[in-house]
Amino acid sequence: MAQKPSIPKGTRDFSPAEVSKRNYIISVMRHHFEHFGYQPIETPSFENSETLMGKYGEEGDRLIFKILNSGDYLDKVPATELQTINYKQLTGKISEKALRYDLTVPFARYVVQHQGEIEFPFKRYQIQPVWRADRPQKGRFREFYQCDADVVGSASLWQEVELVQLYDAVFVELGLHGVTIKINNRKILSGIAEVIGASDKLIDFTVALDKLDKIGEEGVKKEMIEKGISESALQKVQPLFSFTGTISEKLEKLSGLLSTSEEGKKGIEELRFICDNVTQLGLQKANLDLDVTLARGLNYYTGAIFEVAAPEGVAMGSIGGGGRYDDLTGIFGLKNMSGVGISFGLDRIYLVLEELNLFPPTVTNSTKVMFLNFGESQAFQAMKVITILRQNNIKAEMYPDAAKIDKQFKHAERRNIPFVVKEINGDSFILKNLKSGEQSEIDLLGILEKLA
Amino acid sequence: MAQKPSIPKGTRDFSPAEVSKRNYIISVMRHHFEHFGYQPIETPSFENSETLMGKYGEEGDRLIFKILNSGDYLDKVPATELQTINYKQLTGKISEKALRYDLTVPFARYVVQHQGEIEFPFKRYQIQPVWRADRPQKGRFREFYQCDADVVGSASLWQEVELVQLYDAVFVELGLHGVTIKINNRKILSGIAEVIGASDKLIDFTVALDKLDKIGEEGVKKEMIEKGISESALQKVQPLFSFTGTISEKLEKLSGLLSTSEEGKKGIEELRFICDNVTQLGLQKANLDLDVTLARGLNYYTGAIFEVAAPEGVAMGSIGGGGRYDDLTGIFGLKNMSGVGISFGLDRIYLVLEELNLFPPTVTNSTKVMFLNFGESQAFQAMKVITILRQNNIKAEMYPDAAKIDKQFKHAERRNIPFVVKEINGDSFILKNLKSGEQSEIDLLGILEKLA
Repeated sequence: MAQKPSIPKGTRDFSPAEVSKRNYIISVMRHHFEHFGYQPIETPSFENSETLMGKYGEEGDRLIFKILNSGDYLDKVPATELQTINYKQLTGKISEKALRYDLTVPFARYVVQHQGEIEFPFKRYQIQPVWRADRPQKGRFREFYQCDADVVGSASLWQEVELVQLYDAVFVELGLHGVTIKINNRKILSGIAEVIGASDKLIDFTVALDKLDKIGEEGVKKEMIEKGISESALQKVQPLFSFTGTISEKLEKLSGLLSTSEEGKKGIEELRFICDNVTQLGLQKANLDLDVTLARGLNYYTGAIFEVAAPEGVAMGSIGGGGRYDDLTGIFGLKNMSGVGISFGLDRIYLVLEELNLFPPTVTNSTKVMFLNFGESQAFQAMKVITILRQNNIKAEMYPDAAKIDKQFKHAERRNIPFVVKEINGDSFILKNLKSGEQSEIDLLGILEKLA
Repeated sequence: MAQKPSIPKGTRDFSPAEVSKRNYIISVMRHHFEHFGYQPIETPSFENSETLMGKYGEEGDRLIFKILNSGDYLDKVPATELQTINYKQLTGKISEKALRYDLTVPFARYVVQHQGEIEFPFKRYQIQPVWRADRPQKGRFREFYQCDADVVGSASLWQEVELVQLYDAVFVELGLHGVTIKINNRKILSGIAEVIGASDKLIDFTVALDKLDKIGEEGVKKEMIEKGISESALQKVQPLFSFTGTISEKLEKLSGLLSTSEEGKKGIEELRFICDNVTQLGLQKANLDLDVTLARGLNYYTGAIFEVAAPEGVAMGSIGGGGRYDDLTGIFGLKNMSGVGISFGLDRIYLVLEELNLFPPTVTNSTKVMFLNFGESQAFQAMKVITILRQNNIKAEMYPDAAKIDKQFKHAERRNIPFVVKEINGDSFILKNLKSGEQSEIDLLGILEKLA
């Protein structure tokens, strides 16, 4: 192979520094997931195609990566059939497995398959890659991690309260202050649809309303009317065009607006429970806001809808989201299992932490001290000390070859190794601090103390 | 979907306890990899097919999972061609990507692709799943993790010394004492081949020799002769049939045997360096042994060959292995890059720890205390305390619904939660130890102290 090798578009190699930073974010999430009572599960990278197909709409079906059957997969497809078959029909005959597209459907499948072993309510978290055959573009990948926490088997709104706290806890520990956790409720949206007299216009309505900041009230109304929403309907929801104030004030306005909608009133009640309790329990650093334009996942969420925005001033889409789906496992035949969950966007959180310089410098610390190599007998002395250092929890290594000293020093510098042992005389060493240039003669105890 | 959902054969779901135990093993490996100076990388789950195909022999090519191209993958295959095409030819036209089969080839690809950014010698570790379309059977899976540490860009034998120490360090921390690290050298095997006068008989020879314990010297010799090895050749290597003693004694015997083979003598020299230094530096708990029947990876290893056997009495194949390959990156056009590495068998190590009951009980500890739920206002009081406990690093949760008390207690018991708060009276709580049955009235400070 003459040409330089490459990787498929939309995929990534992660360097040591990148892996360390990603693992740092993951370990913070894992810590808080577990402190909130969520337990880890893992599911296979590929599922039977029938588990995934039809669960994400037509678009989703198209974006699911399919795996070719092993062996002679054409064995059972007659050559005559091949002449007339189209690729969609053929896929069903030559592929039985597909790569995971998200973590929610595999979770639902897991719950149904293992329902006998699971103690409900079941709080689980899952941090694994998913794959989508999306057109690759900046910030959108064909392989990326999802980090989900969900609870299934309870309709209690305390779960929603807790999930808001969980977002707060994770972002606080990551040093990411000032994120805004936006909350809405599918039932509020249904109530608005009732009031404007057209549930089929709901998405048009929320999409247009979301542009209020950009194009102003007149612009938004113009767009809505173009989409077929009547003037009189718009008058009924006029307060939504100046929908500011505290959460309580917003809930008051909604109460007025949605007084004729039973479902709308139920949504207000739910939101009030969640927001009141979150506020009274107190968030550490995050802001909570009620955003009636939040229509994320409208197709499957039935109650609360969450989305997290990065702190003001950081140009980044949402860094998390979630919601409640009353019938999580129904697709696999297990009815009446309400679920609610949130997801963290690892790649975007990474970019935000990078932009705000929030990764602790220790995260990418690797080797603390490198011993120069002067040939076999000195090297043995070095390895003796290194063995002890490692057993004492100090990251140490020796340059493997007795190369030119200059080259060895450069290696340590390029790898950001802070200390070099440049000489061993019996029981004492010359330890050099590569940053300050300072060097000192020191014995084993001294080196253990200094580098601990 | 009426039938209970399932997962593809050869794949696994991992329950919370299983994930926790697997993560424990991985975290121990990660810790020591990093203390030995290895840095983490990650590569994409799928590679371009040309990166993988042809690298693992014909068998490997067959066992690689191929991914169907997205969209209308038949677009460029004329229907007339489909009539006569066989599945292998078709695969090349409808699939351009394939799932990773191991971590070594992607590592070689990574090194060549990023050679400009890498500071050599490059010590990397990688812990990721791989996929093989093997026939599933007990202990063999189609998706499993590999855990590899390799160094590329140095021919120094100190790396081999260090890798033996790394095995020792990891297994000591896992509490797995008495593993045997078996070592051999490809050059010794080549030397034996020279002496018996037939390099093509080498595998037959080692396979037969490996049965010495089971079928005795006469049985082994009979098998060798059947395979076409001459009587006179066998006389030349007679000492291999009583190949016992210390490593030094074995090296002495080999010196006699292989005195006419330059390559054999080089192998002895290398083995002596490694074994002498390992012995003098001292292993904590592992045994080192020289095993001339060790022929693992004969196709690609060029120097040291390693294999780790579980402690005596545990019926389990090798739990780790590795070796040196002088031309790791040559397949991608970068010459003269010697590499040496080892691999840990996560699944088998898991089974051994399970069998010997070596997982620390704390590994699967989840929630420490559960608060009973008596309805909204009590629940709010509980959540206030829980919020504080979590901020103080105590895993706490509330039963989400105001269910019957019996049901709530059962939930805590089934989840092995050790403490339950069964009552809140103002600032004090009734805390019950579910194991001892003991209960006490306690305030917030008391609970923080007791559960810390």
